[in-house]
Amino acid sequence: MRGAVLYAPGDVRFEKRDDPTIIKPTDAIIRMSATCVCGSDLWPYRGFNSGGEPTPMGHEYCGIVEEVGRAVSSVKRGQFVIGSFFASDNTCPNCQAGYQSGCQHAEFVGGAQAPVLRVPLADGTLVATAEIPPDDLIPNLLALSDVMGAGWFAAEAANVKPGKTVAVVGDGAVGLLGVLSVRQMGAGRIIAMSRHESRQKLAREFGATDIVTERGDEGVARIRELTDGIGADSVLECVGTQESMMQAIRSTRKGGYVGYVGVPHGVELKGEDLFYAHLHLHGGPAPVRRFLPELIDLVWKGKINPGKVFDLTLPLDHVAEGYRAMDERRAIKTLLRP
Amino acid sequence: MRGAVLYAPGDVRFEKRDDPTIIKPTDAIIRMSATCVCGSDLWPYRGFNSGGEPTPMGHEYCGIVEEVGRAVSSVKRGQFVIGSFFASDNTCPNCQAGYQSGCQHAEFVGGAQAPVLRVPLADGTLVATAEIPPDDLIPNLLALSDVMGAGWFAAEAANVKPGKTVAVVGDGAVGLLGVLSVRQMGAGRIIAMSRHESRQKLAREFGATDIVTERGDEGVARIRELTDGIGADSVLECVGTQESMMQAIRSTRKGGYVGYVGVPHGVELKGEDLFYAHLHLHGGPAPVRRFLPELIDLVWKGKINPGKVFDLTLPLDHVAEGYRAMDERRAIKTLLRP
Repeated sequence: MRGAVLYAPGDVRFEKRDDPTIIKPTDAIIRMSATCVCGSDLWPYRGFNSGGEPTPMGHEYCGIVEEVGRAVSSVKRGQFVIGSFFASDNTCPNCQAGYQSGCQHAEFVGGAQAPVLRVPLADGTLVATAEIPPDDLIPNLLALSDVMGAGWFAAEAANVKPGKTVAVVGDGAVGLLGVLSVRQMGAGRIIAMSRHESRQKLAREFGATDIVTERGDEGVARIRELTDGIGADSVLECVGTQESMMQAIRSTRKGGYVGYVGVPHGVELKGEDLFYAHLHLHGGPAPVRRFLPELIDLVWKGKINPGKVFDLTLPLDHVAEGYRAMDERRAIKTLLRP
Repeated sequence: MRGAVLYAPGDVRFEKRDDPTIIKPTDAIIRMSATCVCGSDLWPYRGFNSGGEPTPMGHEYCGIVEEVGRAVSSVKRGQFVIGSFFASDNTCPNCQAGYQSGCQHAEFVGGAQAPVLRVPLADGTLVATAEIPPDDLIPNLLALSDVMGAGWFAAEAANVKPGKTVAVVGDGAVGLLGVLSVRQMGAGRIIAMSRHESRQKLAREFGATDIVTERGDEGVARIRELTDGIGADSVLECVGTQESMMQAIRSTRKGGYVGYVGVPHGVELKGEDLFYAHLHLHGGPAPVRRFLPELIDLVWKGKINPGKVFDLTLPLDHVAEGYRAMDERRAIKTLLRP
């Protein structure tokens, strides 16, 4: 088969890779219905965290089970499944506590920008839908594999409650789906921080009641202005830079909550800043597996449409253009069809 | 009157100061029943955060109301009262949310190592007991003014629940009272980290089930060993150094809770360390006022004896020796009698 491989910053190639096969008896092989490019793929694409070696890319996936190892019992050939970017056994104490992305046997699922994928720990990682979904549900279901689960986790980590005031820092796919999650959880006022018109529009469609275009000190001042000088009850941090993290922390009220899911790059938090902010901080790699059953149900019933973040659809072999469009912010998120 | 004034590192003098008087109509004047030296007083005593100016010291107090301003209605002359080191109006949104130490009108109450003290915002700050307490309750009640409230807040912030495994980093008065708080909240296993025999003894008396004497990597390894490799459900950080903070973070299980009340000195947390630790972080200056009614009740009924942390009692004019004894770790905490 052929799949996406990153060679160097800006250099994604669609080229021959070995066909995935069952390696361990707990593996499954999936034929991809769709895959996509993640905002976090842009870090190595831009030269951060790049290991130097050619790297198969992609970690978001859904599709039809082609084959399972002999120890797999919960999914079978022919089923449509979705899984998380972290494979998990879903039985260890960390999984049982709801932190499957911190599973004691967690394995990162890489190389999903390809027509076929090996998923380790299939029983603990994959969730099958009751039926094969109609084609128009595929983008919504694919989004659950990472970005929607990340937005949902940010909202959960930020303790979003009905009627509360919530700010969302970051207008990428995760931030926008954070807005959708917050809306679904019943927040009263939802402030999206965005300076891009197309993203503001989607944020409003997902439920944002206010848009703040300012950043840094001015952004914080604007949030305080909108909240009688108190700050937001909950803030979702969906970027991962020092500026976005501090913007989130400083926009939160005393005793409020910051939920952060942006993979940190160069973030350093001063003890004093946290101490006197008096806030609750929680986040990390989203335990997507925890949320899959509930989110699949919401998608199936038409209550959420997270697939709207895909504003560019390309054939899989045009993957390089999918990266370029996102890198240049021409697209929010690229869906790839094998 | 005469009170404690810090002139320079190691140089505390008991000397003439102006008698406190009502300045604002919301003030009260208290005649001290007892006061004490706080672990946090040792930071400037050791040359940290010292402003250079002679500074009246002390922020823990309880005593009899001598006089109140004309706007004060909830406490009156002759009552026995306890207050927090942060004066608060107890009506602003931050106070209403339970974060009185982050009150929009918060004022630090300084200069309490003296026979008489002016307390601002008396209505929002002071809590009166139903009767004048017997003398043997004074140390227990004085402890509520700061250290007991701080230990209690650390336990609350760390989401301590019945049956859970909790570790406490720090064997100063706050850490020891953290152990007592955790015990009171019903934790199943309580691991105190301490290498000092007298403090270990008090930790056991307060409810610790295990003592860990190792620190740093070894301390973390020991906690993991005691928790089947998972980490503690909740960890209380009661020191405020980089080492203690990282020890707390690394001792906590995925999805677990760190409650921190040690005033941070030079602490810097890397975004990645927090992100992959997957923990909940909450803390700050303890909102002691929130807990005072409940803690007074527990003391009055004899359910807790936080005054046991005072292992040295001196006349107020020997305050300098009180500092020395704590600085040299000959005493856990010094009580001062005017």
